[in-house]
Order: sequence, then C-alpha cells, then structure tokens
Amino acid sequence: MSISSFHPPERTLMGPGPSDVNPRILEALSRPTIGHLDPAFVGMMEEIKELLHYAFQTENQLTLPVSAPGSAGMETCFVNLVEPGDKVIVCQNGVFGGRMKENVERCGATPIMVEDDWGKVVDPNKLEEALKQNPDARTVAFVHAETSTGAQSDASTLVDLAHQHDCLTIVDAVTSLGGTPVKVDEWGIDAIYSGTQKCLSCIPGISPVSFSEAAVERIKARTHKVQSWFMDLNLVMGYWGGGATRAYHHTAPINPLYALHESLVILQEEGLENAWARHDRNHQALKSGFEAMGLTFFVNEEDRLPQLNAVTIPEGVDEAAVRKTLLSDYNLEIGAGLGPMAGKIWRIGLMGYASNEKNVLFCLGALDAVLSGMGVGINSGKAVNAARAYYE
Amino acid sequence: MSISSFHPPERTLMGPGPSDVNPRILEALSRPTIGHLDPAFVGMMEEIKELLHYAFQTENQLTLPVSAPGSAGMETCFVNLVEPGDKVIVCQNGVFGGRMKENVERCGATPIMVEDDWGKVVDPNKLEEALKQNPDARTVAFVHAETSTGAQSDASTLVDLAHQHDCLTIVDAVTSLGGTPVKVDEWGIDAIYSGTQKCLSCIPGISPVSFSEAAVERIKARTHKVQSWFMDLNLVMGYWGGGATRAYHHTAPINPLYALHESLVILQEEGLENAWARHDRNHQALKSGFEAMGLTFFVNEEDRLPQLNAVTIPEGVDEAAVRKTLLSDYNLEIGAGLGPMAGKIWRIGLMGYASNEKNVLFCLGALDAVLSGMGVGINSGKAVNAARAYYE
Repeated sequence: MSISSFHPPERTLMGPGPSDVNPRILEALSRPTIGHLDPAFVGMMEEIKELLHYAFQTENQLTLPVSAPGSAGMETCFVNLVEPGDKVIVCQNGVFGGRMKENVERCGATPIMVEDDWGKVVDPNKLEEALKQNPDARTVAFVHAETSTGAQSDASTLVDLAHQHDCLTIVDAVTSLGGTPVKVDEWGIDAIYSGTQKCLSCIPGISPVSFSEAAVERIKARTHKVQSWFMDLNLVMGYWGGGATRAYHHTAPINPLYALHESLVILQEEGLENAWARHDRNHQALKSGFEAMGLTFFVNEEDRLPQLNAVTIPEGVDEAAVRKTLLSDYNLEIGAGLGPMAGKIWRIGLMGYASNEKNVLFCLGALDAVLSGMGVGINSGKAVNAARAYYE
Repeated sequence: MSISSFHPPERTLMGPGPSDVNPRILEALSRPTIGHLDPAFVGMMEEIKELLHYAFQTENQLTLPVSAPGSAGMETCFVNLVEPGDKVIVCQNGVFGGRMKENVERCGATPIMVEDDWGKVVDPNKLEEALKQNPDARTVAFVHAETSTGAQSDASTLVDLAHQHDCLTIVDAVTSLGGTPVKVDEWGIDAIYSGTQKCLSCIPGISPVSFSEAAVERIKARTHKVQSWFMDLNLVMGYWGGGATRAYHHTAPINPLYALHESLVILQEEGLENAWARHDRNHQALKSGFEAMGLTFFVNEEDRLPQLNAVTIPEGVDEAAVRKTLLSDYNLEIGAGLGPMAGKIWRIGLMGYASNEKNVLFCLGALDAVLSGMGVGINSGKAVNAARAYYE
C-alpha cells in the first residue's frame, strides 16, 4: 500500500451545499492549532457567540456551534427538547421534515405529521388544525428552508401558531441562515439549527444552534436524562457557557471554529441586509437566464429560496449525463434531486460566496452549452445574455 | 459590534491533545472544498478507509471516520452495540471509563463497574471476576490508553477474557492510536474508537472507528432502533460503505477529512513501528530529564504511555502558576490533571508530530527554568543535559 497526498480538483460548487468556500476562510482554517482551553481560544469562542447572535438576530444566551454537521445540530435540538412520551407536531414538505420525524421517534416520542406537497410551503391552516386536534402536543417542528426543494415557509406565522397553542418550536434554518432573513427573536423561535456549508460559505462540519429562554427552562426541567451524552446541552453549556471556569466536555474542533469565526466576520462586514440583497439579485439574474432557456422553476415564485434554485428537468433529458458533463468538462457541481425528487429537478445553489455574477453567467453558459449539445432544443447564447442584461 | 479576524498565537502543544499539527496537514486542510458526493472525494474516502485499516491493523470492512470528535466516536460505539436492558461491564481507571458508564446508562442499559485506582491499569483478575458474576453481560468496555492518567492497559488480555465469556468489546484508543501498538485484528477488538488530535497530529474533530464482523452482526440484529439518527451505523454505512451508489446521510466534513487523509499518509510514510519507536525514544529522553530534576512519574514504569507523561506535581508548587507562565512566557501548553487528578499531576504530551527532540529539550528547559524561578529546589540546567545525553 502506498497512498499519496490528495489534491482535490478545483470545482465551482453550485449544488445544495457545500458551497464555494471563501479563500479567506480556507486560510483562517489553516492557522496554527491551539488548545481548546487556551485563553486565546476561549476569547475567540466568546466572539463566535457574539457573531452568531448577529447572524441569528437573537440575544439568546444559549447560542453556540455544535461540533458536528447540521444533522447533529438537528438532533441536538430534538434530544434536548423532546422527552419520551411527548407528542411533537412535525410539518413535512421535503426530505428534512422526514428526518425530523425520525428524530422524534428515536426520542421515544410520537410525531404528528402535517404534510404538504414537496415544493410547496408548510400550510399554516393545516398546522393550526393539527394543533387544535392535539392539545397535548408540546413541540412544533418545521423546516424554514427546505434544502430538498428550495421552498421557504413562513416561519413567523408558524411559530405564532405554535405559541398560541403552548408549543415550543424547533426550526431548521440550515439553508436560510445568511441567505434570507432569519429573525430568531422577532419571530420567537425556541430552538434553531443551521449549517456552515451553505450561505455562510464555510466548510461543512459545524452546526450553529440557538435556544430561547423557554427552551432552556424546558431543558433544565427535564425528567429524563438527554439520551445523547455528546449532545447534552446541560454538559455542553459547561464548556460554551462562558465564565472563567470552563469545564472540559469534548475537544472542540479548533480549526473548523477558526473558519466559522472568519465566515461570521465576513458576514458582519458585508451586513446581513446586504447579504440577503446579494442572494436575491443573483437569483433574479439566474432566473432571467433560465427563462430565456425555457427552463421552469419547481417552486412558486413567492416561495422560492434565492439561494437554492430547483429547476424542473426538461422532458427527454438524461439529467445524470448533464451533471456528469458539467463536472468533468466545467468542474461545475450542481445538485440532483433528493429522494422522490431524483430525476425531476436539479438544485442549483447560489449560496454565500458562490452567489456572485461570475457563477451565474458561468453556470448559465455551461448548462446552455451542454443542453444544446444534447439537441434538446435550447438556444445557445440567449441565457447568458439575459442574465447579463439583468445586471446592467 | 466589530470583530476582526482571529489570529491565534503559535503555541507548542504538549498537553493531552490537541497536539502540534504537522504543517503538511494544515496545508492539506486548506485545499479547495469539493462536494461530498464528488467522484474525486469518494475516491479519497476509499483511501481513508484503506489507510485506517493500516493504522488500526485491521481488515474490518466497517472502518471509517465519524464526522465528530472522539466523544462522539465513543457514543457511536455504545449506541450501536448496546440495547436497552443490556448489561455492560465497564472497567474504569480514570475519567474516560466514567464517560463510558454515562453512555451505557443513556442507552437504557446497566453498567457493571470494575474499578481500579487512577493511574493503575485495568486489573484482568477483577474483570474475570465480574464476568463470572455476570454471565448475562453482553459487552465489556475499557480504555486502552487513559488520557486522564497516562496508563496503558493490556488490551489483548482484556479482550480475550471478554471473548471467553461471550462478550463483545468496546475499546477507547483515543490516545494510543499511532503512538503505541493498537492491533485490532490480532487482539480481536470488536469496536474501537480513536481521535485525530493525539498521535495522528491532525486537527481535532474527527473520530476514526472500526467494527469487527461480530459487531456488525450485532448491529444488524438489533431489536431497537439506534437512538441516535446521526450516529446510526446502519445509515452511515450507506454513505461510507462503498459501492457506486452512495446514499447521502449527512454532509461530510470535507476539509477535515483532507487533513485526516494527509495525517494517515504521513503515518504510512513513517511506518507504524517507526512511529511507536519514536514515541518511545522521546519519552525516554523526557524521563531522563525529569529524573534529573527530581520529578517523579505518577504511573508505574511498565504501564506508562510514552506519548502522555503524567508527572506528580512537587510539594509546595502552585501548579496553575507554572502552567500559566509556561503559556505566557514560552507559548508552551502542558496539561493539568483532570477531575480528581487536578492539582496532583501535570500531563505532558509527546504525541505525533509533537514527539520530537526539540520539544523534549524545550519543555525540560522551560519547566526547569520556571520551577527554579519559584525556588522549589530544582537545579537548573541538569534536566536538559540529561535528556540531550540520552539522544547521544
């Protein structure tokens, strides 16, 4: 056996994440490792919390990055807020609502499903009905930005309904944070998790989370121990909770946290409103190009996530062959459909650092060329021109 | 709020981990991010598995890096192998045996504790007694290399005993892998977890694990779902299991896996036997220096981990002041005692890349100078000379 160092190809990442990582973040990632109890590191942890307060638009004290990917952030919310025997209303309109259901079941609780078609948003009327029929439900969980379809639900309205029925809320903001408004305090969200590899343009592997005071009270009042030692916030708080005497819980992923810090500094420099506007602008340009190509969106216009564009695959196109050619000839990654959406949609991300004019024009040109080459009747050239015109 | 980029100080990391990261690994870490289903990435995943086979000395098919720190690796072993109602014999001789007990309890199982004094190894006679008294036990768990004390237990003997009583074994090799022999197949270990931030000299945040065929059979035969969705190996196998159709489970931490790959390539280049010999050589030199200073080891000579030296703090020394001065004046991190060992020992790591002559001499010189400055009767100069003489 003799295996050499791995040198990855340079891709343009326009799938559902990871997105292109800002070179500043890659550089930060490679700074010298220090100890997880080093005073310099502890100071940086405090800054990360402050920067996350800004990103999440919250003053929640319990705001921190979980030392694992977004799906561990999801699980952290569920295992801490849900107890065996609980009833949890789960709104599902894509893959990630289904994963929430799995989490509820593994906590020994009962999920009550509120289902909407994939590509649609969560229907508040259906949620209200479920709340009325299940007065003993303690929690409502839903996905703000469905990564499997690109649909964005009205988090504020859903949280209001939950609170009217004395439920706490768990919200998936993996794909929305940094790309479209996520206002934890204004909307009253109780538990929220996100990922680093989407609109924060950071490397994958860390999951920022935040919990309201009501959520913290519930965690402290639990009658069963949290089933996960690694994700037990009662223990994690001892390390991230601040104060002079930080207790060792696990060894924090030092360098990935440098990267998260840098990505949040970049977000702060740009400003949330500017980042949201940029995501919208590039989405509009991409949309102009797609329309010129005759491609249609899978999600209704008013529900679309600008950072994740689900496009219906034209009739007769070998979609896997298109993605393969884009990757091999253009080093361009776009996303396939997930689960039941496989073969029906492409998911084209314009997330974080990857949401820029160059990527829009490059992707349109490449997709147009590949589709034209397959003779599926799309006029080469038009798409890039349309997008370029949008930017004028 | 205006927070700037974080630039860590350059430390020498000679605590219980993280250890100094090889600059080659930091460079690999910062290579361009690609997608978690990219064929190039999938190829690298296969190489990581092959390199882990070498590091663990195993042919176990189910060998992979968990996308989270060592404590999540530990939890992955327990939640997959232990079912509610099980009886698990846990050998404890330090902090991490206690954490195993926590894991067993959170799985709804009953821990049977086999206790040894901290700093001692696990006593095989006590384990045998416990096995005889608990014929219904299904699993034995122990720590090969106790990071809280620096004691190394006889894994081969303990595994043999467990197997004689029809138990599977869960072994903590966080601090041993790459520093001292870990022979998964020869010793017959069923489930093992390690960390990246110790003798592999990689960044913290990933936990290599490996499972025997018997362990895989038990996982497949479970009557209860694994309580953690994120750590459920039935699902994780779908992504890491190989084959052309890898199923998305969670987004892998791409760049940290580049780093792990590079650290394993480096280990392969050096060769395991050479790495073990290097750890031993530097430990012997450090020992010569400590003896010249009149410092004594906490662990019996035959049980000591060369990569983690637990030194008894001399009478009358303000140990926190010593560590503080080493950090502020020398940028040198050494470890405090953990839990009941706090104030009693220092833990001085010589792990992976950090296990080198320069670090040995630098640490001895710095410690000698700081202790001499405190007037605690240690003769300056002798220690470095003694260590240098060892290398001659």
